[in-house]
Amino acid sequence: MEMQFFKVKTVEETFALIQENITKVGEVSVCALEEALHCILAEPVSADENVPAFDRSTVDGYAVVAKDTYGSSESMPGFLTVSGEVKMGEAAKKPLSRGEAIYVPTGGMIPPGSDSVLMIEHCEEISGLLNTYKQIAPGENVIRAGEDIKAGEILLEAGTKLRPQEIGALASLGISKVSVYRPIKAAYLSTGDEIVPYDSERLEVGQIRDINYLTVSGLAREWGVEVIYGGITSDDYEIFASKARELYEQADILILSGGSSVGAKDYTTEVIQSLGDPGVFVHGISIKPGKPTILAVAEGKPVIGLPGHPASAMIIFRLFGEKIIKKLQGEQSQPKPERIFARITKNIASSPGRSDYIRVRLFMKEGEWWAEPIIGKSGLITTLVKSDGIVEISSEKEGISQGDYVPVLATN
Amino acid sequence: MEMQFFKVKTVEETFALIQENITKVGEVSVCALEEALHCILAEPVSADENVPAFDRSTVDGYAVVAKDTYGSSESMPGFLTVSGEVKMGEAAKKPLSRGEAIYVPTGGMIPPGSDSVLMIEHCEEISGLLNTYKQIAPGENVIRAGEDIKAGEILLEAGTKLRPQEIGALASLGISKVSVYRPIKAAYLSTGDEIVPYDSERLEVGQIRDINYLTVSGLAREWGVEVIYGGITSDDYEIFASKARELYEQADILILSGGSSVGAKDYTTEVIQSLGDPGVFVHGISIKPGKPTILAVAEGKPVIGLPGHPASAMIIFRLFGEKIIKKLQGEQSQPKPERIFARITKNIASSPGRSDYIRVRLFMKEGEWWAEPIIGKSGLITTLVKSDGIVEISSEKEGISQGDYVPVLATN
Repeated sequence: MEMQFFKVKTVEETFALIQENITKVGEVSVCALEEALHCILAEPVSADENVPAFDRSTVDGYAVVAKDTYGSSESMPGFLTVSGEVKMGEAAKKPLSRGEAIYVPTGGMIPPGSDSVLMIEHCEEISGLLNTYKQIAPGENVIRAGEDIKAGEILLEAGTKLRPQEIGALASLGISKVSVYRPIKAAYLSTGDEIVPYDSERLEVGQIRDINYLTVSGLAREWGVEVIYGGITSDDYEIFASKARELYEQADILILSGGSSVGAKDYTTEVIQSLGDPGVFVHGISIKPGKPTILAVAEGKPVIGLPGHPASAMIIFRLFGEKIIKKLQGEQSQPKPERIFARITKNIASSPGRSDYIRVRLFMKEGEWWAEPIIGKSGLITTLVKSDGIVEISSEKEGISQGDYVPVLATN
Repeated sequence: MEMQFFKVKTVEETFALIQENITKVGEVSVCALEEALHCILAEPVSADENVPAFDRSTVDGYAVVAKDTYGSSESMPGFLTVSGEVKMGEAAKKPLSRGEAIYVPTGGMIPPGSDSVLMIEHCEEISGLLNTYKQIAPGENVIRAGEDIKAGEILLEAGTKLRPQEIGALASLGISKVSVYRPIKAAYLSTGDEIVPYDSERLEVGQIRDINYLTVSGLAREWGVEVIYGGITSDDYEIFASKARELYEQADILILSGGSSVGAKDYTTEVIQSLGDPGVFVHGISIKPGKPTILAVAEGKPVIGLPGHPASAMIIFRLFGEKIIKKLQGEQSQPKPERIFARITKNIASSPGRSDYIRVRLFMKEGEWWAEPIIGKSGLITTLVKSDGIVEISSEKEGISQGDYVPVLATN
């Protein structure tokens, strides 16, 4: 495949091509619920019991028949006979008749015959008689059996990312093991004769430390991906290609950094094409920063060629890498509000047909978020340190004006 | 100390009391940069070298004196003599004179005497002569030595949370070890005779599985905290107090779940007071859900008494637990946009003087976020599974009206 066949893609086209070209790894492993945080569920989970399993009180109070409290008030209390007490963790076996009240603690089971619980703050027990100071409605302060989860219903669909609340919901059913997709592995390789390991104490003139490894692997770890560090390869084609092949075979996705601009020593496209079919599907995106980005699939495994500039590499990996990784992990959650809206503090020009991503500092003023552009070339890592968001100027816009509400991708 | 001395606090008062009462653990450990993601920097870091270390080209092109390109255009090209080439990772030693151009790859050092780089797309080399098709400004396509980070300047302050971009900035200085505060440890204890381990396959009538452990420890893990599981203690005071003491001694913060409503068997306050001075500083918050929350400090260690209802426990821990843990970890980062604004789909009433937190599902409609309330009692874990945010109705409001812009704490 020749490079000239590639037309630069818009951001929207790139997102669509990712949806089309990336498929999940899909290998299932069984994992203890306690270890499953942020994993992706491989099978739907349905409830085999009601949650709660019984009618529970949500307060400390007296189980009653709601009707028996009608008309009660501070000035005109009603009277009921206290006929017992339910202890925590015990079945409420003794039924309640009209005119009676039975004490129930928070979380306790309410007795058969009762339909609501009068809070202790709204009544007073005096030698076996309960003065009721408030009328309540049937169902008040009670959670019915199955009100949270009904036996037989599907609680979570396959592809759900397990947040703390999903883990909690699974625990409420007594589920202690779950089928999840195994976490994916990425391999990272830097290319470029000028790149030296990040922990090199002294630099020769012309050398640059490999900082993209740390920013890219940091993001990947935030997304639950283990990263194999493949080191730095020289610009020599044979060495680069064999190192890339070796890493490609160890991982579910290969990330290459640097060498993706159209330079004399740019073998990145050739190396990617050598890994397998169908190969490159995006070669250049009309985006600033990050134009020389390459996306490919080789025999089912994605390969990302990131631009070398640190801030460009991070922005591109945040925008497209995360989408690729979620697809690969099998996550099917609904789109969540990763973008907030803020008002821009300055006019910014932009070329129509190109999406611009402007690093910004966010601050609150009079109850609104404002976004202040951080000016700096895409090679500057400190622009990302100073920023906590990226403003998106979509490709159909010619720029944005001071005070406009703009979408911001938060990076904190 | 008697419980009647405690007045219910507002949310704002609670935040202020947390600021006042919680101090950082502050134990420093040295850690490899690769392992430092999300750690809190214990000392400021200043740069002992310039980043970049030399004047770099940001493109593939020809280093020139910008003035020599003035007047160049597609129709009226200028001409320069190509006097050499700089290789990647090599020092550019040969100086450039007026009228000359030297090839430099992306990331390469520009030669002394040059002040800008003309992209290869804007020129053409023909037998030693360069046709220039564009005029450029001094500094164009060049990052100056020290433009990213200047030697001597403070790059990061103590208390900074190390995101991928901060790790990258440290790597750009060749820093491979950092002084960070050691991660904190929390201990978790459930109380209540009705609570059984979450993985109990079958429940006796009246029993409830300990799901708060999984939701609370899940959140804590997201904030970088290791959680010691203390199991479930009965409501017996002696057993509860000695178990709490044992866990308190192993951890930096103790989290108790359940037993914090004012019930007959509620020893939680007494147990917390037994751990040390000054003791409880918040006993009850005017918030819905989560009123029966207890916050304390015993000999410098925070203790949190969470309400027993799963959704209440999660919301309270998300709102106040995270603030306490960040303070304890020594994090001093600026407030970040954890709250977005969305429009509410329904009128919601609220009592003035009380802060209400309404679980919502967020969706995008015509370029705006809308928040749809998920109706359900605070005991229902599934309300949190269905929601991806919490709308805040602050204590001075009597409610919110359909279409209002409201602050939402995202929970995805």
